[in-house]
Amino acid sequence: GIQFPQNQMEIVKESETTALIDAHNGMGHPTAYRAMQLAIDKAKQYGLGAVAVKNATHFGIAGYYPLMAAKQGLMGFAFTNARPSIAPTFGTEPMLGTNPIAFAAPSDTDLPFCFDGATSIAQRGKIEVADRAEKPVPEGWVIDAQGKSMTNAAEILKAIPKDLASLLPLGGAGESLAGYKGYGLAVMVEILSASLSGGPFMKDLLGFAEDGSRRPHMLGHFFLAIDIEHFLPLETSRKITGDIMRALQGATKAPDADRIYVAGEKEFEKEQLICEIGIPVNENLLKDLRMLRDTLKVTGYEDYF
Amino acid sequence: GIQFPQNQMEIVKESETTALIDAHNGMGHPTAYRAMQLAIDKAKQYGLGAVAVKNATHFGIAGYYPLMAAKQGLMGFAFTNARPSIAPTFGTEPMLGTNPIAFAAPSDTDLPFCFDGATSIAQRGKIEVADRAEKPVPEGWVIDAQGKSMTNAAEILKAIPKDLASLLPLGGAGESLAGYKGYGLAVMVEILSASLSGGPFMKDLLGFAEDGSRRPHMLGHFFLAIDIEHFLPLETSRKITGDIMRALQGATKAPDADRIYVAGEKEFEKEQLICEIGIPVNENLLKDLRMLRDTLKVTGYEDYF
Repeated sequence: GIQFPQNQMEIVKESETTALIDAHNGMGHPTAYRAMQLAIDKAKQYGLGAVAVKNATHFGIAGYYPLMAAKQGLMGFAFTNARPSIAPTFGTEPMLGTNPIAFAAPSDTDLPFCFDGATSIAQRGKIEVADRAEKPVPEGWVIDAQGKSMTNAAEILKAIPKDLASLLPLGGAGESLAGYKGYGLAVMVEILSASLSGGPFMKDLLGFAEDGSRRPHMLGHFFLAIDIEHFLPLETSRKITGDIMRALQGATKAPDADRIYVAGEKEFEKEQLICEIGIPVNENLLKDLRMLRDTLKVTGYEDYF
Repeated sequence: GIQFPQNQMEIVKESETTALIDAHNGMGHPTAYRAMQLAIDKAKQYGLGAVAVKNATHFGIAGYYPLMAAKQGLMGFAFTNARPSIAPTFGTEPMLGTNPIAFAAPSDTDLPFCFDGATSIAQRGKIEVADRAEKPVPEGWVIDAQGKSMTNAAEILKAIPKDLASLLPLGGAGESLAGYKGYGLAVMVEILSASLSGGPFMKDLLGFAEDGSRRPHMLGHFFLAIDIEHFLPLETSRKITGDIMRALQGATKAPDADRIYVAGEKEFEKEQLICEIGIPVNENLLKDLRMLRDTLKVTGYEDYF
């Protein structure tokens, strides 16, 4: 989406434990980084800290921000809304963003617990990856305007902004496997992102003005930090979280399963691997990268791709 | 489970925004009520308030506590762990409680938004209801020790404490429909409930001492309140939350759907109906109630059942 390269974030309202920031549509990542650090600093002093942000742009990986807290010995949450793509239970219209919940807590090992999940079954990025790889998406992720399953990634991406396709909430369509829970969690994240920041929400996040021209998405975020030492010694908490993680990793496995993971573990190992071997990309993304490099005459990357 | 009728809850540690309570295995509801109100009172003054509780017993409906916040013009969260019943993704052993997430926010109508959902597809109570009604539970809710589906409610309730059956996390078995998200959220709730309170967790919540004798479940809770006025005027927030709810209720419906609900709406309407007509019970529960009434020689209820 559209964003302004100069960061002009402004603290509109502030108290010991809280702040409201207007990001003025500046770049998403630095604003979110500063907002989370502000929540952490407040929590270190007062036990809890929370920062709501309005007029924000995409902040990248939601889990990055709670991990900042975990690395500093706190627990952290990040929530954000996004342009509408999830249909409510019994509906076929994309109303809610993929609205992730991200949470991290420090353990007694190098691996913190880090959950970062969209409240839909799959987030938009996974469908974009399938599109680039020219692969279909699995049955049960997306429905069309009649509520029927869609699997063609390119068609889905074109249909969502026209209200002709919707992502299903975690738990799927209807009530039998509790899709109303994924739906309810998505609304919770929408409320945390909009009803504390006062920013736009749902259809107003589409990135188009009334005259049809493009405009920033004007997202809302909510960051929360919890200082563990205000409750109990950090080492006690780290040990309990580590014990929880180890118990899960050691649980009885299904006959066809190799390994039980905890949230954040695959990403942690992938990060270590990528730092060694580099980032794998598919052919179509490689083409895009080469086109960008050559069009913009960027030099110094000839050895990499 | 076992609980002590006299409430001897003790505030072990306290700051402006936080408190740690040892419930000493007293009755669950009054302890949870006081803990949530303490979080609300702290939030009203400092913007945020959080209370962790250890050695607690079952507090009933999780959504009751965030609704206390919503009724006082705040947003609220309640989390609790519970005796193990959910298997992790790729596992077949019940490791995590049904660990609910409950959240409420005030709107500009009588209906607040209130999400209250176990992080499993179905919570244990629904299986107990199916058992009393002598009905099977739907496919996909529960697996046996080999990972195969189980539907007999009575058998499931007997098998879970023996590690021979597990509830599936929201999203189901494996990764295809994102069951790792329900699993990750269940762990998040376990960490919030244990790693801030310092109480027992997972298998230590089974309610049995090492010598096999029964003991209290020693649950952990975490309550959080957010004072809206610290961010923006309460009426602005109420209006945004109300607008979000109305937009969802008015979204395009699936061809076979009558109505789109928001979280808490069915329960709100049911409560109003029940206040008028009374509580419907099935034959087996009616038998239990009559037996209790007659055994305990309780008088004054002859007209009701």
